[in-house]
Amino acid sequence: MEKPYAIGIDIGAQSAKIGVVNRKGDVLERAKVSTKDTTEFDVFLENLVEKGIKPLLTKNNIDISQIQGVGVGAPNASYKKGTIEQAANLVWGKDPKYNGIIPFVEKLKEKVGVRCVLTNDANATALGEMQYGAARGMKDFIEITLGSGVGSGIVINGQLLYGHDSFAGELGHTTVVRAENARVCGCGKKGCLEAYTSAVGLARTAREILENTDVKSSLRKYEIDEITSKEVSEEAKKGDEFAKEVYNRTCKMLGETFADFVAFSAPEAIILFGGMTGAGEELLLPPIKEALQENLFKIWRGRKENCDEDKIKVIFSSLPDNDAAILGASALAW
Amino acid sequence: MEKPYAIGIDIGAQSAKIGVVNRKGDVLERAKVSTKDTTEFDVFLENLVEKGIKPLLTKNNIDISQIQGVGVGAPNASYKKGTIEQAANLVWGKDPKYNGIIPFVEKLKEKVGVRCVLTNDANATALGEMQYGAARGMKDFIEITLGSGVGSGIVINGQLLYGHDSFAGELGHTTVVRAENARVCGCGKKGCLEAYTSAVGLARTAREILENTDVKSSLRKYEIDEITSKEVSEEAKKGDEFAKEVYNRTCKMLGETFADFVAFSAPEAIILFGGMTGAGEELLLPPIKEALQENLFKIWRGRKENCDEDKIKVIFSSLPDNDAAILGASALAW
Repeated sequence: MEKPYAIGIDIGAQSAKIGVVNRKGDVLERAKVSTKDTTEFDVFLENLVEKGIKPLLTKNNIDISQIQGVGVGAPNASYKKGTIEQAANLVWGKDPKYNGIIPFVEKLKEKVGVRCVLTNDANATALGEMQYGAARGMKDFIEITLGSGVGSGIVINGQLLYGHDSFAGELGHTTVVRAENARVCGCGKKGCLEAYTSAVGLARTAREILENTDVKSSLRKYEIDEITSKEVSEEAKKGDEFAKEVYNRTCKMLGETFADFVAFSAPEAIILFGGMTGAGEELLLPPIKEALQENLFKIWRGRKENCDEDKIKVIFSSLPDNDAAILGASALAW
Repeated sequence: MEKPYAIGIDIGAQSAKIGVVNRKGDVLERAKVSTKDTTEFDVFLENLVEKGIKPLLTKNNIDISQIQGVGVGAPNASYKKGTIEQAANLVWGKDPKYNGIIPFVEKLKEKVGVRCVLTNDANATALGEMQYGAARGMKDFIEITLGSGVGSGIVINGQLLYGHDSFAGELGHTTVVRAENARVCGCGKKGCLEAYTSAVGLARTAREILENTDVKSSLRKYEIDEITSKEVSEEAKKGDEFAKEVYNRTCKMLGETFADFVAFSAPEAIILFGGMTGAGEELLLPPIKEALQENLFKIWRGRKENCDEDKIKVIFSSLPDNDAAILGASALAW
C-alpha cells in the first residue's frame, strides 16, 4: 500500500539535513544533525536516528509505519551497493572499522526498519526536479548543479542514468580546455568543466584577469583574495562591464559543452541548479543559450515547429533552494 | 510464440542489403536491391519486397509466418516515428509524394504483414553487437563506427539510448577542436570528432602534413589526392614512421574524447567498428587506450580489482564485416 510520507536526508560535510516530505513535495518539518563531531560511523548513525529521525516523527505524530521509505543523498555514494566510499569530506568516511567503505543503507535499514535508498547528491537533485520541480512530466533531461563544484544528474527515459558501475554522470569532469596551460581541477585532471564554470572557477577567472591586466572594474574595490562569485555577481548586476564579461565567458563555456551533452543523450532540457543560479536568469541564460545554439548539431538547433520554444531548452530549477536536497533525497523513496 | 527467423535490411546510398537470420546470428541467405535507380519511394518499396524479400524466403522454403519481424537500419531514421527523414543520400528520400518524410515502417508493414522496426544504422550495429557480437552479456556500452563518418550507438541498461526525440547518440558531432582554424565538418559545424577521426579525417591529416611540411614518408610515392586511409594504414603497417604518427594523432583524439563519453554514461566498454578498424588492433588500440587512461576521471582509471582487465575496456567489434549491418538490423526484430 502507498504510504503518505517519505524521509529525505541530505548528507554534507557539516551536517545531515533531514526532512519529512509528503507526496506533493511539502517539507513538513526539518531537523539537522552534525556530520563532523564524530569519526565513528556507528556514532553518527545513532545520532542521525535518535536525535534526527525519531524526534522529527514524534513531533509530527507520524508513525514509522506511515513512511514509504528513506532516501539519502550523499557524496561518493554508490546506488548499486548502498555504500559511501572514500568520502574525503566526511570525517567518519574513513572510519577504520569499515575500511573506507561505509555500508550506509544496510546499517540505516537495521535501525529504521523501512526501505532505504542512497544516491549521490547531484542524482538526488535530478530526481527531486522530476518529482516536484521544473522537470515534472519530462523523461529526458540533464540537471547541472553549479556550486563550488559542477555536479550532474542525467535522466533518460524517466530513469536516473547510473552506468555499469553506478558512477555515471560526472559531467563536471569532462574536458573543456585542452592546452598545456589549462587549469588543474580539484580531481587532478586538467581543463575540466568544473575548473572553469563552478562558482570557484568563475571567481578565479575574475581574479586572474584583474591581476594580469589593468581592466577597469568596480571589483577593484576588493582585495583580490576577497573576490568570490558573490562579489562578481553583485557587481555584474549593478552593471559592471568586466563582471558581466566574466559571466559571459563562463556561460559561453557552459553552452558549448552543453551542445556536446545534447549530442549524447538528446535531452528535452538542461536544467540549472545550485548557488551560481543566484546570479539570475538574465545574467546566465542569454549567453548560455547563444553558445548552445551556435554549437548544436543541426537537428537540435532553433525552435520547435509551430512553437515558440527551443528544441533543447535551458531552464532554471524550480526547486526551493533550502529544501532542494531534502526533496531530492525524498524522491528516491517513492 | 517465438518464431525462428528475422529479416535484417541495411539501407545504404547504393543498395539495400537483405538477409534472413536465425536466432544464433547465422545469415542464411542474402539479397541485394538497388536504392538508387528510382526517385519514387513506392517503386523502391515494391522492388524491395518483390525482388528482395519474397525470393529470399521462397528460396529457403521459409514462410512469412516463421518470421519474427523485419528490422531495418537506415540513414536519417527515426525509431519513434518509423520514418526516414530528409535523407540526402537516398535518391527517393526526397520523393515529393511524401514531402521528405518517408513513412517507411507503415508502408513496409502493409506489404509484408509482420512487425517492422526501423532505426539508424549506427544504432542497429550496436544492437547487433549486443545480440551476436563482442557486447554479448553487456548492458552498458558505446559502439563507435569509424568509417567515412563517425557514427555511434549507445546502450544503457540493455536498451538503446534514443533521447526525447529519438536522435540521441551523435557522438561524431561533439566538438574536439575549439579554434578559429578548426576543420569544418560535413555537418556545417566546426571541430567535430568526425572531421578528424573518420577515415576521411585521418587521410586529410596525412595529406595536410605532407603538403605543408617536408616530413619523410613512403606515402610520398602517391599523388597527394590519391591518399586515402587505406594508403596510410598500408604504409603504417609496413613501418612508415610518419603514417604511424598520423594514426597516433588520430587515436589520441579518440581516446581523449572517449574519456568524456565515459564521464557521461560510465559504459563497461567502448567498442570500435567500421572500415577504419581494418588497420588492426596493434595500430589503433595502444594509442587510444593511452590517451583514454590519461584523460579518465580518477574513479575509472586503471585496472579492475584482482583482475587483468581495464575498468573501461576499448575493444574491437566481433561482428563479421560483411554481415554486420544485416545482423544489426535483424537484432531489432527480436
